[in-house]
Amino acid sequence: MAKAPSKTDLRREDLRTRLTDQAERVIATQGLAALKARDLASDVGCSVGAIYNVFADLNQLVMAVNGRTFRRLGEAVTASIAGRDLAPRDCLITMSQAYLQFAASNTKVWRALFDLEMASDSPVPEWYLAELGALFALISAPLRRIFPDWTPGQIDLMTRALFSSVHGIVLLGLEKRISGVPVERIEQMIAVVLGNVTAGATPGP
Amino acid sequence: MAKAPSKTDLRREDLRTRLTDQAERVIATQGLAALKARDLASDVGCSVGAIYNVFADLNQLVMAVNGRTFRRLGEAVTASIAGRDLAPRDCLITMSQAYLQFAASNTKVWRALFDLEMASDSPVPEWYLAELGALFALISAPLRRIFPDWTPGQIDLMTRALFSSVHGIVLLGLEKRISGVPVERIEQMIAVVLGNVTAGATPGP
Repeated sequence: MAKAPSKTDLRREDLRTRLTDQAERVIATQGLAALKARDLASDVGCSVGAIYNVFADLNQLVMAVNGRTFRRLGEAVTASIAGRDLAPRDCLITMSQAYLQFAASNTKVWRALFDLEMASDSPVPEWYLAELGALFALISAPLRRIFPDWTPGQIDLMTRALFSSVHGIVLLGLEKRISGVPVERIEQMIAVVLGNVTAGATPGP
Repeated sequence: MAKAPSKTDLRREDLRTRLTDQAERVIATQGLAALKARDLASDVGCSVGAIYNVFADLNQLVMAVNGRTFRRLGEAVTASIAGRDLAPRDCLITMSQAYLQFAASNTKVWRALFDLEMASDSPVPEWYLAELGALFALISAPLRRIFPDWTPGQIDLMTRALFSSVHGIVLLGLEKRISGVPVERIEQMIAVVLGNVTAGATPGP
């Protein structure tokens, strides 16, 4: 039987939650670069050292925020197709539009998913890979219906290629400096790429 | 007749060049976030105030570095197809592989092209848009050969969509944390997306 958590465990858990809440607020309003240990400590009322008792470093705290963002993103994408009887291609397009909407309305936390530079020696947490895998699974499912003869390797390649393509279109589309197009035009770009890619030929193994 | 530059003009120009050189070195080795006015001033032997005599702010200095990077990138992409008699689709794929190679070998200066956050009220310089336009023109040319009946609007939409897609594939492909695939696999992803997109149907106007 699992042991009941000690008072210390509960206190640590409470501090983790409060730090994650506050870090999420800072990232959402000011962006990842504004996150500073000293400000966090003062905002939640703990010492700077106490942060490093519950998180190995600030990156791990950002990962905790990113985990929440991934979950909300997954929910938004899932909700966009839930209960609708869509053809697989429309399914991909609808989910991509939901991705765009999420990125447009949650730009700073969404950017933090990708802007966090991880030291090459720090391992990517299991749960992070699991969240990413869940997101990819949403894309693979309609692809398997479009291309029933493809190997798992081909489906995986196309899943990553399409996710990356849509991500690139959303990212540069939302950057005023690079293209500065209205959201409807970003939606058109997504539709043309997804529509044509999924109409095409089989990739290499 | 243009007036000969004054001694002050020449001094300003020399300081601009030295600051741009040093900023380029810092960004290339440590990344955009490591750029600090105080360090720059000490490295080139001027006062912090002198920086702001020749650049309105650090963003403008980064834009000067980015201008160089854009030019080198354009040269690398152009060189990849120069003197080769490629079918338009192979032309797009070859240029994209050159883009990937450039990004892989110049990751930090390439990231700075896209990571610089411009205040929404600061206008994008003319020369920056011109460099970007030159890069897009390289993509539009083969697209016009593949789709001779498309309107300029359709070609423009597809040009931006494809550039953004390839950018997304390269960006996430080079991020170990997100997909961590070998470069050959990034090349495969580019080929499958470009190959299929250009085989497809006409987008909306």
